[in-house]
Amino acid sequence: MKQKQYHLKCVNCSTEYSPDEVLYTCPKCGNRKGTLEVVYDFTSQTNWVNEKKTGIAKFSSILPIQEDLLPTTVTVGDTPLYSSARLAQEHQVKEVFIKDDGKNPTASFKDRASIIAVAKARELGYSDIYAASTGNAASSLSGICAGTGIQAHIFVPETAPEAKIAQMLIYGAQVFAVKGTYDQAFDLSLKTGEKNGWYCRNSAINPYLLEGKKTCSLEIAYQTNLNLPDWIFVSVGDGTVYSSFLKGFSDLKHLGLIDKIPRVIGVQATGCDPILQTFKRGKPFVIEDMEKTETDADSIAVGKPRDYLKACQYAEQMNGDFVSVTDQEIGEAIMELARKTGVFSEPAAAASFAGFKKMSKSKVFNPQDKIALIITGNGLKDIKTPKKYLKEKVAFISPYINS
Amino acid sequence: MKQKQYHLKCVNCSTEYSPDEVLYTCPKCGNRKGTLEVVYDFTSQTNWVNEKKTGIAKFSSILPIQEDLLPTTVTVGDTPLYSSARLAQEHQVKEVFIKDDGKNPTASFKDRASIIAVAKARELGYSDIYAASTGNAASSLSGICAGTGIQAHIFVPETAPEAKIAQMLIYGAQVFAVKGTYDQAFDLSLKTGEKNGWYCRNSAINPYLLEGKKTCSLEIAYQTNLNLPDWIFVSVGDGTVYSSFLKGFSDLKHLGLIDKIPRVIGVQATGCDPILQTFKRGKPFVIEDMEKTETDADSIAVGKPRDYLKACQYAEQMNGDFVSVTDQEIGEAIMELARKTGVFSEPAAAASFAGFKKMSKSKVFNPQDKIALIITGNGLKDIKTPKKYLKEKVAFISPYINS
Repeated sequence: MKQKQYHLKCVNCSTEYSPDEVLYTCPKCGNRKGTLEVVYDFTSQTNWVNEKKTGIAKFSSILPIQEDLLPTTVTVGDTPLYSSARLAQEHQVKEVFIKDDGKNPTASFKDRASIIAVAKARELGYSDIYAASTGNAASSLSGICAGTGIQAHIFVPETAPEAKIAQMLIYGAQVFAVKGTYDQAFDLSLKTGEKNGWYCRNSAINPYLLEGKKTCSLEIAYQTNLNLPDWIFVSVGDGTVYSSFLKGFSDLKHLGLIDKIPRVIGVQATGCDPILQTFKRGKPFVIEDMEKTETDADSIAVGKPRDYLKACQYAEQMNGDFVSVTDQEIGEAIMELARKTGVFSEPAAAASFAGFKKMSKSKVFNPQDKIALIITGNGLKDIKTPKKYLKEKVAFISPYINS
Repeated sequence: MKQKQYHLKCVNCSTEYSPDEVLYTCPKCGNRKGTLEVVYDFTSQTNWVNEKKTGIAKFSSILPIQEDLLPTTVTVGDTPLYSSARLAQEHQVKEVFIKDDGKNPTASFKDRASIIAVAKARELGYSDIYAASTGNAASSLSGICAGTGIQAHIFVPETAPEAKIAQMLIYGAQVFAVKGTYDQAFDLSLKTGEKNGWYCRNSAINPYLLEGKKTCSLEIAYQTNLNLPDWIFVSVGDGTVYSSFLKGFSDLKHLGLIDKIPRVIGVQATGCDPILQTFKRGKPFVIEDMEKTETDADSIAVGKPRDYLKACQYAEQMNGDFVSVTDQEIGEAIMELARKTGVFSEPAAAASFAGFKKMSKSKVFNPQDKIALIITGNGLKDIKTPKKYLKEKVAFISPYINS
């Protein structure tokens, strides 16, 4: 199958490149500022969705991959979009959607990017892929590589949750637990990956991964028959997931399928909110990294966000915004979401709900608004954190208590 | 919506009852032997599947529930059926399917029964449901009750895996951890539930739950366009899950949709195989309970299986069989399945693959055979067990190692 026509454009200096000119980032602006954007040629009649296909292959006409190189071992995407009448009523809005991306094969949103990484590695002839990760991107890459013949190499902070590390090992990845932060693991992964000639699955470096992530927004468009929510809430770590929603909707707008792009609200933890701070300071967007990250939400404990510039620029161009929530608010959000909707989410995933609740208190929504909360990971990925906030305990009893 | 016509029949004495005559088991034969079977009136033109519906509601024309009473908070069923070319080649069979039921809302097969329990509780006017469980049925009931206004009360052995207990509490169930075995928790649940007037979600007692479980076989029939596998491998604890596959296929045969019922092979752990032993001794099927259960596969650590009679009778009538596997074989099966197919399963779920591998070694399959492995729970439900069998370790490294 022929690849879609596209080129790459630097978000900092706007220089354009053809895909065979550069592998990852803008050579002029470097890794941090010079992240690239995939720009498609939509002049032809592009059919954005193929309903007969399963998972993200539905959208391959607007993805930068050869569809026949996507692994088919497991299905990525096709996750449920629930509508919670109860939450809509409680917050006096028209509809509250729950996009349960914890139902992806490795139980996180990150599978949408990993499957693109494997397709690209195949196209470019790599047999090994590496990733730095707070946990989910790595367990995802490990699971999506399983059965494909491609070896995953993982760099995580040693503090990554036990369940995520277990996944990586069980799927057969090589796992390096770095005695330091995610940010240090990230830097180390780049050096080691380059030295060994491995393909890079770091979303802030590799421009194609955001395109995989954007399939979540495309799925929401498909599941709502293009009657999009007015607001999207999603947690923010490095910044790529946030940008992926605005990119997906922007692509749909370029295709003439929607008029208005939803307001995408990025949720950070108050103990680690460098992108929010950068955005609030305004243009030009200059990041101030945070040495210490203080949050239980491991997936968004990113003090040195690598893809901040794209996130801030997109937010500015497309009326996005950011909000921060405390760990206490996140912990309570896990429980409330599970009990009211049946969806058990990991801390970073529940941050989306916590952010929505916080803004709801400020009365920013009107009764006609439709909201979507993106649940980026399943609660089974980290059971330690919610336990801190549980008021209810197990009652240990004798088997003879009632006899 | 009108309920389907059906009656209840005792598997021991064959007495027939109308649904309003008995609540759970045959009054003559009691709880253990007198489990009831739901028998439908299939004389009318029954349309077995409604493709427009989501989840198990597809099959409500052959389920004993009012479709409009099924909770719609989350979607139960519609889990993927993968085909592993690699496993088929390695075992010299035509096809190996992986039915990944760990993708249900609470990450286990048991959601198929819990959703029926909630629909029935609503029909009968109960506000509380109780369950005894090794873990999955309980975390499932907790999650499926969430958001429905029905309160779950749970009885588990105190040894149930941490992740499953966390799920129950987070979903808002009342949890009793019994200082004893699953079998003791079961007996205690019956007494407590009866005393408090709660509805019973114990599959071996409540005849409707097996009907929910049979939707997995119906989904396989739907996903294969009625070109069924020749063999099904599924792990066995109490016996109900095993029977549910044969019941589902049997219903399809009564409807004239299939000629041949697949051979359903129940897999038990060598350290806890009372149903296998009972079946091997032959008719009349007299159970010998096991005081001690020695297996890491917590979901099938059932020494006193409550639904053994139906399982043995169905196996005898429909050419089923049982096989047992060691914990070592189960542990290795978790890793092999994850690495070759990308599906990470909990120990009891991987037992199906271990059972298949054992029989494959004995050359019982022919090259035209199609196999389906039922993955009844996600691996994130128990990460401690596979770690025992992992040869690979995490490499702890300094962030400065390569600088």
